[in-house]
Amino acid sequence: MRIVSLAGGIGGARFLRGLLAASPDAEITVIGNTGDDITLFGLRVCPDLDTVMYTLGGGINEEQGWGRSDETHVVKEELAAYGMEPQWFGLGDRDFATHIVRTRMLDAGYPLSQVTDALCDRWKPGVRLIPMSDDRAETHVVINDEQGRRAVHFQEWWVRLRAAVPAERIILVGADEARPAPGVLQAIDEADVVILPPSNPVVSIGTILQIKGIREALERKTVVGVSPIVGGAPVRGMADACLTAIGVETTAQAVLELYGSPLVDGWLVAEQDAGVHLDGVLVEARPLIMHDAEAAADIARAAVDLAVRLSEQRGPAGEGAR
Amino acid sequence: MRIVSLAGGIGGARFLRGLLAASPDAEITVIGNTGDDITLFGLRVCPDLDTVMYTLGGGINEEQGWGRSDETHVVKEELAAYGMEPQWFGLGDRDFATHIVRTRMLDAGYPLSQVTDALCDRWKPGVRLIPMSDDRAETHVVINDEQGRRAVHFQEWWVRLRAAVPAERIILVGADEARPAPGVLQAIDEADVVILPPSNPVVSIGTILQIKGIREALERKTVVGVSPIVGGAPVRGMADACLTAIGVETTAQAVLELYGSPLVDGWLVAEQDAGVHLDGVLVEARPLIMHDAEAAADIARAAVDLAVRLSEQRGPAGEGAR
Repeated sequence: MRIVSLAGGIGGARFLRGLLAASPDAEITVIGNTGDDITLFGLRVCPDLDTVMYTLGGGINEEQGWGRSDETHVVKEELAAYGMEPQWFGLGDRDFATHIVRTRMLDAGYPLSQVTDALCDRWKPGVRLIPMSDDRAETHVVINDEQGRRAVHFQEWWVRLRAAVPAERIILVGADEARPAPGVLQAIDEADVVILPPSNPVVSIGTILQIKGIREALERKTVVGVSPIVGGAPVRGMADACLTAIGVETTAQAVLELYGSPLVDGWLVAEQDAGVHLDGVLVEARPLIMHDAEAAADIARAAVDLAVRLSEQRGPAGEGAR
Repeated sequence: MRIVSLAGGIGGARFLRGLLAASPDAEITVIGNTGDDITLFGLRVCPDLDTVMYTLGGGINEEQGWGRSDETHVVKEELAAYGMEPQWFGLGDRDFATHIVRTRMLDAGYPLSQVTDALCDRWKPGVRLIPMSDDRAETHVVINDEQGRRAVHFQEWWVRLRAAVPAERIILVGADEARPAPGVLQAIDEADVVILPPSNPVVSIGTILQIKGIREALERKTVVGVSPIVGGAPVRGMADACLTAIGVETTAQAVLELYGSPLVDGWLVAEQDAGVHLDGVLVEARPLIMHDAEAAADIARAAVDLAVRLSEQRGPAGEGAR
């Protein structure tokens, strides 16, 4: 079976680890969000790609959910001693090496997709990890605080301001020109099912869906999503701040409507959200909290099972929908 | 008193520490060798400038003579885990931060001399440290081994091959175009005396002397050199391999002749080299081994004393020689 999954950072990566456990024989392609990418100290940092790579490759800081295990922070301390900004982004020494390798390859002319392949040669995440695009498409957030109305990089809003300043708008700079990275559309076309993990529906999944051609390709497929909202609150992270910025309620119903039909065919919600409904979508309720790896695998298994059932209803190879 | 000193790496830096101790009230300008500079992992590394800066600023690894004290090597290990080359150059984590700051500033358009000023803002070395040039002038070495005749970067010959493969030629690539960095010629013009530490006469002092205008400016000044060769062997390092490459004997006499007159006015040699002679040069013999900081200060004091005496013989402000 061929599975395609979109993914953001921590929540997506933990779900993917469950998906790998639930579908050990599947060929899984992960399309990673790169809207959060940022250049720090001249080095290109891809937080979501790295979180997926480290989590699936066994190098993640489990407690934190991002960054490397057994990490030290000597370089960061020294940069601060030189007065280098920004000091609000936590880069560890092991992590720095990843960004040095990536930047070196990008500067040598390799596209991010090939760089990601090269980094995964070491990490062997067990999935094929492709960035959504090799082009720059960077999430910026319009805020209005005592310094006035201005657009800041997503990371500045998310990490430095902890999303505490309301976002007036969230803009994917470069979205109009960015094309899907090589292999993205083909992987979707060849997929038996597509799974949307409980990643942030605005700045992770929503960002990937803005890249030209990706939404259209997904609409031809059987897609099952896992609600990132349980009982009116994000499972983890600050998705509510992002949803509010785009005028969407923080509910499993509202996120389903945001994704919409015909994109989504099946939608997993938590038991307390069992009343969620959208025409054309099969909604199923079940426990959705990823307490541990086993819980994540259970949720992933339920998502894949639902997708397979929906796919079979559509007829062989989903042709009924084409 | 205004003193100008040229400097290479370890030996030069230790001598300079002695010079600072011997002349606490002097205004000292150090013109640093940048011929050894190399770009590694996309980061600009200036080994000699950093050795001077760390040594005088209290951040040096005393035992090793280069690199930072209390150093760790996590980034280097991680880069090796990614298979990144070269792995033969030892960059520690604290040191990496220096190169990240430098590269960031160079990429932003600042010349190396301003970058060096900014780094010294932190280290406060007690001298004004100016790179010999803001332009690229990089030492390459022609070798001929089982891989055939080829030119390698100085660091590859020095560090990877440990200068064990004979150098056929030593070439300063870019020497014809490189101009002295801002402040270099003015500092020399305004100097009361100039001191040449026992740095490598070929790839440190010799490199600086190749930058257009520097030798000529020095020839108008009272210059005292400290022989880097004692009893036919380098005080430290592998200067003999460099001298052999340019057809010069490893003796205090030959190095004096290499610098020549009218560049050098005074020459300090070790007691066993007391027979050294060159017309127009006052040669004095004294203990030259820098066992410790005090010995370095004694040698520096002897060099400055000799320079002051020679300068007084020349008449006020050295005008007799102009």
